[in-house]
Amino acid sequence: MGPDKRDPLPGPSHRGPRGRRGVLAERIVRAARRSFAEHGYAATTLRRVAADAEVDMALVSYYFGSKGGLLEAALAPPEGFLDQIAQAAATPLPERGAALVVAMVGMWDDPDLAEILRSMILTADHIPVAMDRLRTLFASSILLSVSDQLDDPERFLRASLVASQMVGLAMTRYVWRVGPIATIPSAQVVTLVGPNVQRYLSGLL
Amino acid sequence: MGPDKRDPLPGPSHRGPRGRRGVLAERIVRAARRSFAEHGYAATTLRRVAADAEVDMALVSYYFGSKGGLLEAALAPPEGFLDQIAQAAATPLPERGAALVVAMVGMWDDPDLAEILRSMILTADHIPVAMDRLRTLFASSILLSVSDQLDDPERFLRASLVASQMVGLAMTRYVWRVGPIATIPSAQVVTLVGPNVQRYLSGLL
Repeated sequence: MGPDKRDPLPGPSHRGPRGRRGVLAERIVRAARRSFAEHGYAATTLRRVAADAEVDMALVSYYFGSKGGLLEAALAPPEGFLDQIAQAAATPLPERGAALVVAMVGMWDDPDLAEILRSMILTADHIPVAMDRLRTLFASSILLSVSDQLDDPERFLRASLVASQMVGLAMTRYVWRVGPIATIPSAQVVTLVGPNVQRYLSGLL
Repeated sequence: MGPDKRDPLPGPSHRGPRGRRGVLAERIVRAARRSFAEHGYAATTLRRVAADAEVDMALVSYYFGSKGGLLEAALAPPEGFLDQIAQAAATPLPERGAALVVAMVGMWDDPDLAEILRSMILTADHIPVAMDRLRTLFASSILLSVSDQLDDPERFLRASLVASQMVGLAMTRYVWRVGPIATIPSAQVVTLVGPNVQRYLSGLL
């Protein structure tokens, strides 16, 4: 959009190695995420991922080296994730609770993003290194972004309370899909959950 | 305790089939829970569970029939779980938010109970039927117990909001163990999270 595009050769007519690599690599990473999330680390093989992605196995090795490299790529946070949380966390304090819920729900309502987030959570549940990465992602996104913007001796605790509500919202609404919270419109989620996040940010603890 | 014991032959001197079955069956179910949670359904075998539980494989078949029977047993909610939630949900409305957090934190702070709850969550994440059971458990515990005790047209929505906070608390504090919420004393969790649960129960939505 606009004059500040960074890629000098964007668009579908670009057939150079970068664009091609982007498409194939993304397809491989997608298949890897699904496999790690559903079958765990031991049961995921380069061969299986290649078959699921409908590419040659040599290409998987060429792009990602090993299964470890593939896991690394599968666990990279989705593009824009950290920025969106940081932006919401920088909203003026009185509206910040709602802004964080808007950002969170907006990301999970995007099917591609939701798929990435969901598989990161499921993968973390059975691969210890993935759990470490999820913790780090959390530490650097919700916890750090939110606490950084608070001028309060309890800022880490406040950020951690915010995270407890955000994670529970994500789990019940998007991962487990249980109860009315899973089906009400996003705008209503913001109205209902926003004030609770706001208390954690600026209320009396 | 007291005169209303139900088991006619309680205590460690009881060596009849019921007591013995209880101990061995519990050891088998424990091993099964761990295996389903860590390795999923396909990778769990009666042989592996028997080896982990240090019992003969024939005993596993005899007690639980099949792998399906073992999964069924592994997914049974921990004893007292539903009662404790229901009791907390029946607390007078002004103290109910705190009471629910007390009940929740009390159960998770018990290592045996926490192990069962944690493996139910992890198992649900990779076995669809386990996810259905977790949903049902949720529906019949938090959602039903909490909504049943509210006299409010929005009672199901309120219960679902309560669940969103409870699940997030369980995930961040006990399953992922991330941020200050994972290390502060339980009493502080009640002070911090109780009022937010209370708003979902009785506040303006």
